[in-house]
Amino acid sequence: MFFQEPELQYEVTVENPDPHFAKLLQQAIGGQEGEMRVALQYMFQAWALPEGYEEYRNLLMETAAEELGHIEMLASAVTKNLRGSPTEMGEEAQETAATAEAMTRQNPRQFLSAGESAMPVDSNGVPFTGGYIAASGNLAGDLYANVMAEATGRTLATRLWEYTDDPGMKDMLSYLIARDTMHQNQWIEALDSLEDPVPVPASFPQEQENQDVNYTFISTRRDQQPDPSYPWTQGESPDGKGQFSYAAEQPGGGEVVAPEPDSITHDEPNRSAQPDE
Amino acid sequence: MFFQEPELQYEVTVENPDPHFAKLLQQAIGGQEGEMRVALQYMFQAWALPEGYEEYRNLLMETAAEELGHIEMLASAVTKNLRGSPTEMGEEAQETAATAEAMTRQNPRQFLSAGESAMPVDSNGVPFTGGYIAASGNLAGDLYANVMAEATGRTLATRLWEYTDDPGMKDMLSYLIARDTMHQNQWIEALDSLEDPVPVPASFPQEQENQDVNYTFISTRRDQQPDPSYPWTQGESPDGKGQFSYAAEQPGGGEVVAPEPDSITHDEPNRSAQPDE
Amino acid sequence: MFFQEPELQYEVTVENPDPHFAKLLQQAIGGQEGEMRVALQYMFQAWALPEGYEEYRNLLMETAAEELGHIEMLASAVTKNLRGSPTEMGEEAQETAATAEAMTRQNPRQFLSAGESAMPVDSNGVPFTGGYIAASGNLAGDLYANVMAEATGRTLATRLWEYTDDPGMKDMLSYLIARDTMHQNQWIEALDSLEDPVPVPASFPQEQENQDVNYTFISTRRDQQPDPSYPWTQGESPDGKGQFSYAAEQPGGGEVVAPEPDSITHDEPNRSAQPDE
Amino acid sequence: MFFQEPELQYEVTVENPDPHFAKLLQQAIGGQEGEMRVALQYMFQAWALPEGYEEYRNLLMETAAEELGHIEMLASAVTKNLRGSPTEMGEEAQETAATAEAMTRQNPRQFLSAGESAMPVDSNGVPFTGGYIAASGNLAGDLYANVMAEATGRTLATRLWEYTDDPGMKDMLSYLIARDTMHQNQWIEALDSLEDPVPVPASFPQEQENQDVNYTFISTRRDQQPDPSYPWTQGESPDGKGQFSYAAEQPGGGEVVAPEPDSITHDEPNRSAQPDE
Amino acid sequence: MFFQEPELQYEVTVENPDPHFAKLLQQAIGGQEGEMRVALQYMFQAWALPEGYEEYRNLLMETAAEELGHIEMLASAVTKNLRGSPTEMGEEAQETAATAEAMTRQNPRQFLSAGESAMPVDSNGVPFTGGYIAASGNLAGDLYANVMAEATGRTLATRLWEYTDDPGMKDMLSYLIARDTMHQNQWIEALDSLEDPVPVPASFPQEQENQDVNYTFISTRRDQQPDPSYPWTQGESPDGKGQFSYAAEQPGGGEVVAPEPDSITHDEPNRSAQPDE
Amino acid sequence: MFFQEPELQYEVTVENPDPHFAKLLQQAIGGQEGEMRVALQYMFQAWALPEGYEEYRNLLMETAAEELGHIEMLASAVTKNLRGSPTEMGEEAQETAATAEAMTRQNPRQFLSAGESAMPVDSNGVPFTGGYIAASGNLAGDLYANVMAEATGRTLATRLWEYTDDPGMKDMLSYLIARDTMHQNQWIEALDSLEDPVPVPASFPQEQENQDVNYTFISTRRDQQPDPSYPWTQGESPDGKGQFSYAAEQPGGGEVVAPEPDSITHDEPNRSAQPDE
Repeated sequence: MFFQEPELQYEVTVENPDPHFAKLLQQAIGGQEGEMRVALQYMFQAWALPEGYEEYRNLLMETAAEELGHIEMLASAVTKNLRGSPTEMGEEAQETAATAEAMTRQNPRQFLSAGESAMPVDSNGVPFTGGYIAASGNLAGDLYANVMAEATGRTLATRLWEYTDDPGMKDMLSYLIARDTMHQNQWIEALDSLEDPVPVPASFPQEQENQDVNYTFISTRRDQQPDPSYPWTQGESPDGKGQFSYAAEQPGGGEVVAPEPDSITHDEPNRSAQPDE
Repeated sequence: MFFQEPELQYEVTVENPDPHFAKLLQQAIGGQEGEMRVALQYMFQAWALPEGYEEYRNLLMETAAEELGHIEMLASAVTKNLRGSPTEMGEEAQETAATAEAMTRQNPRQFLSAGESAMPVDSNGVPFTGGYIAASGNLAGDLYANVMAEATGRTLATRLWEYTDDPGMKDMLSYLIARDTMHQNQWIEALDSLEDPVPVPASFPQEQENQDVNYTFISTRRDQQPDPSYPWTQGESPDGKGQFSYAAEQPGGGEVVAPEPDSITHDEPNRSAQPDE
Repeated sequence: MFFQEPELQYEVTVENPDPHFAKLLQQAIGGQEGEMRVALQYMFQAWALPEGYEEYRNLLMETAAEELGHIEMLASAVTKNLRGSPTEMGEEAQETAATAEAMTRQNPRQFLSAGESAMPVDSNGVPFTGGYIAASGNLAGDLYANVMAEATGRTLATRLWEYTDDPGMKDMLSYLIARDTMHQNQWIEALDSLEDPVPVPASFPQEQENQDVNYTFISTRRDQQPDPSYPWTQGESPDGKGQFSYAAEQPGGGEVVAPEPDSITHDEPNRSAQPDE
Repeated sequence: MFFQEPELQYEVTVENPDPHFAKLLQQAIGGQEGEMRVALQYMFQAWALPEGYEEYRNLLMETAAEELGHIEMLASAVTKNLRGSPTEMGEEAQETAATAEAMTRQNPRQFLSAGESAMPVDSNGVPFTGGYIAASGNLAGDLYANVMAEATGRTLATRLWEYTDDPGMKDMLSYLIARDTMHQNQWIEALDSLEDPVPVPASFPQEQENQDVNYTFISTRRDQQPDPSYPWTQGESPDGKGQFSYAAEQPGGGEVVAPEPDSITHDEPNRSAQPDE
Repeated sequence: MFFQEPELQYEVTVENPDPHFAKLLQQAIGGQEGEMRVALQYMFQAWALPEGYEEYRNLLMETAAEELGHIEMLASAVTKNLRGSPTEMGEEAQETAATAEAMTRQNPRQFLSAGESAMPVDSNGVPFTGGYIAASGNLAGDLYANVMAEATGRTLATRLWEYTDDPGMKDMLSYLIARDTMHQNQWIEALDSLEDPVPVPASFPQEQENQDVNYTFISTRRDQQPDPSYPWTQGESPDGKGQFSYAAEQPGGGEVVAPEPDSITHDEPNRSAQPDE
Repeated sequence: MFFQEPELQYEVTVENPDPHFAKLLQQAIGGQEGEMRVALQYMFQAWALPEGYEEYRNLLMETAAEELGHIEMLASAVTKNLRGSPTEMGEEAQETAATAEAMTRQNPRQFLSAGESAMPVDSNGVPFTGGYIAASGNLAGDLYANVMAEATGRTLATRLWEYTDDPGMKDMLSYLIARDTMHQNQWIEALDSLEDPVPVPASFPQEQENQDVNYTFISTRRDQQPDPSYPWTQGESPDGKGQFSYAAEQPGGGEVVAPEPDSITHDEPNRSAQPDE
């Protein structure tokens, strides 16, 4: 159950509005690495957890609600960059068309579709999709997905931080980057709290997997190469359950010919008797 | 540069063809957790690597080419389940319509669009999308994405393994599950070979992030709760750079009102003087 | 800023679990008429509102937080229908494959991708997309979008109600249908509180639009028809600003030939001198 | 059944071609608020109507055919803005590369994919999707969808009108804005011609919905607030079937714990005995 | 400019309604090979044609309007299969839930979202997308796209014909299959009317392309193979401008290392000094 | 089974890096006409072929592996245009923000999401989709799809060639254009090697199609026109199986009224007794 207060989680100010930055911020809202993704991802993961996982469900839902607040902060940053832009604050006599042009040089839909507001799209205007959300039902898999989401999310935030000179925007991003540091750490800590999570899923009886190739690095080089002695071709595997080895050649041996389709699919063209004449 | 041989990486046989399983296998081809995703993801990650990363580029490209071969194996499994199905092997007198119906009860497009073949779609028929691919340019972020991809991929493969009783399909999946075990381990090993990767990106000057909230678990519970003493609210953080703490309350304080939009957006309805009368 | 409590907004029980219904419920979660749409739509609309619109912003955000809770209720209904299904509660001796098959006959991804959980997709497994969200920046346009969203949402809920015999599911849907009744009414009331909202946007100077066709029903029938005397071909228009009239013929007169493209686009095939010989 | 004539519904001229405007016009063709949406939406709605709805079917199909003509007008406007642009009309000696660059600064695909033509995409190049179309089978719901579509469509057209200074483009948009005025009015008039359409769907027995919350505004504020005395918390509801009331608190009480998944989903990680140590 | 009459292009009757067939028909409406694709594709192609192409523009627009009528026929076939189904015509006493279940076993959204009507989606419920439409601005390329569209469209129609036993549906499909025969022939004839269209685009100065590999079949086999003497490795090329030859080996020689990224992208993890220890 | 070598298929150099061109090149990677499409399309087509089609399977797989190498070349071209750009090579003192701005003026996600690398998206940033891939199971249909893919692909490459002045880029494109020439020719040659492929599918018994309209050009002009004597209204059809004829009028005669929906869909609004009063 959710509640809200008419207040941002952290203050958002913009000294020098910049419509171009408003466009870039969309990536952190509706992009593959954005806050809509993590907010919804953490919820769907939490809703799959049965009895005995209270601490993980709380961890997920506490964070999900925080991420909803981050979408709100970023949306506020977008309107502040779009609406207070220097272009529009120019002389009264300025043509409105010039303003409109300045707006539409960036993400045209922020002007055309949203009237200078934030949208559920990325920095190229591609709509957010549920396809970005990973929620496998398996907690260990989900926690790796969360480390990855916060890792790419923090990388995005640092690139936005590098772009902007605006003190207000740098401050907001400095806050979001810090939260991503915390979130990366909390998901890794949660992984560490599980017993022996790797390989995911841990509950599959590992003796049922093919025992010849489960710790073997198989080279796909055209010409066979000697073992390069990389950490992933020799030594103990990080799951502590095997020893890495090296194979210079893929097993091979499978037949590539498909069975005949049913005649009712009309797959069959009139094959020429002599295709090469 | 790529090469190919007309041979599957590993043998694929089907004893009891099952069109329903042919539909499920699509998830492992074109789904969010499928092989198209990892094959392409590893390539795009490799192509971003500059000088000095040869061992990682090789690791990525060697594995990418293997995953292409897995798509091929799964496509072979699909045609073998669709085309040799008991339904169609029935009496000659059987109505073709009955065959067609059996086919189309599953993924209709495997019959209608592909003539009983594999397709670049998932088990619900949703097309593969580049939006599934994570390639951030940052190697540590990418390696976490790869652990996650192999973790959800192996989970999918085990669920397919549980579904089927067919010895050929169980054997193929046992092979693929084993490869996913290897791949999870190799990506974790590669992460371990990096110095101090967390928080990602490591090169951002951490003193620039907000120092008040970068190791603090902020509760979003409606009613303030005491510190639950979870591993992520106390103790050293896994990156070794901070101490977890607990805050029962979000910072708050930000103003939620958006600036006035330009008049040329025609955002403004004729506000009633007294909306509440 | 958002908060949450580990408690559903309204109780959700399932007497006779039904995996097929679990699939149908997805439409109300991630579908075009679903709760993800309205929750996010109301937020983005609220975040665009400037000073002076407090009552509307509150209205939108209060409702958005409620809709988040509805997603949670529906996700709970999905897991309860999937996991407690009669199929799996059968004899111990039952093959697990039979269970898996029963699961995957429905939405395969609820089993394969989510481990018997809810997903951010619709009842056909198509991922939720930001393209479902309407937030134009213009409050009147947005309120019409909201009436429409609740109208199609309530229609969906009644169809789900008709489908199921389960008392718990009927009770939950009866609650959601009632909320949609309220929400339809509140958006219409909010429209009524605006001065003169139609045609949207109200702030465009109506004298700038073409005065010949702004209240004329233009027939596109192949053969000219007499005025059918429908309410939309005669009488006063509902905005009170015009009189409906009828034209049996489209204005026409525009030239359909495109300009020559630049030669650098290589649009031009070698046109035959006599295409019709 | 459809017919066509090689003539635009209304004349389209461009005095000062502008490739940037050609990009913006795409929103009105293939965007969420565009003409492809309404043309197809009205058709699918019409095709669902049974006997007794002739006047509504006619209304929908008459308008659908008109909207097809609007797509054609806008496509003509796009080629006229792209192909006759000042850049390309420059000196003979000008490098073609400069022309190409000017073209591609806008929507690159109008040049690269379409050879300076219109495309079925929006102003960011995102393809049109059937997901924009609302056709619920319920006429009242559909008519609200149509009011909304014309409201956001007219808002888009006015924003395009504000952008451009070109007399030809202003004239075309003035025509389209006028048609949207008519269409908004006709759909509202059609709604008015229905008996008692709200709440949609009207045929659901309203006594079956939960009677405690169907006219109650439920606050989701974190801290309970007194009734704000808004028009939607007191007084008669616009459907004439209830009295608005106010609840400061969500009902709550539902259990959030999901049932145990089947073991064959491998959801379960090896839970640590002491997650918090 | 478009016109319409309330009459189908060809009669559509259904003797034995079948909700499953209603689902399959969606592929011919909103699928990759469906009628929405060709109708819109032919329009966008036509709108790009400049003066001198009247006969081709007419050809495209005449056919586009016909295809719109085919969508209408198919939509009619869908409602007739859904609404008159035996299930619902059963005894009065039958539970409505049984009817609903029968409906939703097929495409759930035809029941849930559309009230037993046709939708702009394919047979898996995936929405139609503008990404299916090919309109390159180059007439020869477009005509090849049209041959291909009609070829896959006719293949789809024959598969639907094989599926159904219903005399009405077989008759409708027999009509549509015939039209696809005509349309394949007309596009090939139109290609033949162009002078020398291959390679597309014909206007590119062919001496500017690499002369070493423009008629060479380059093998990608791992192990070099002798020329297989296929029609595409020897003899004159069909464009009449070259002689096919065979190369057993790809040219190769390009450097795969990417340049260093800017430091502000934070791509660089802390590389371990000894990755292989 | 696939193999790879750390070497590009053909050398890729960039003399004057241009971030704008890096954006345009994305169209050739992840666009509708791009190399991801053809590489995957040829694979899926090959995997459907049964015994007796070895030469076609080889043709498809040989080319597929080559196209994978083209994606790699283009990805290399992208990083070389992004990372070595003049902007970043400027004075040391230059603000990093200026660099970032230059980067993000183009495809923001190449900077924000990918750290100055190539992505699986088109030139507008729209992700690659499996919906671009045509693999019908019918070889003749597939070969037409391949001619079309190479035709639009070569058109795209020539437009990129016209855009750039960079000698390295012109050289790479000259190579790719040449390969497209070869590929167009090889697919046409393969079509020619089939016996009598048109109309596709050839195996459908043509006497089952409606014999009245299978070689008739049916005009959709509003007003009946005389036979225009085009090559597609008279003379022998290119499949050699019919004579073109001309009909000035569509057959017509079909009933447009849909059957009554089930009451449980709640489609029915309260129809007004007198809609036109």
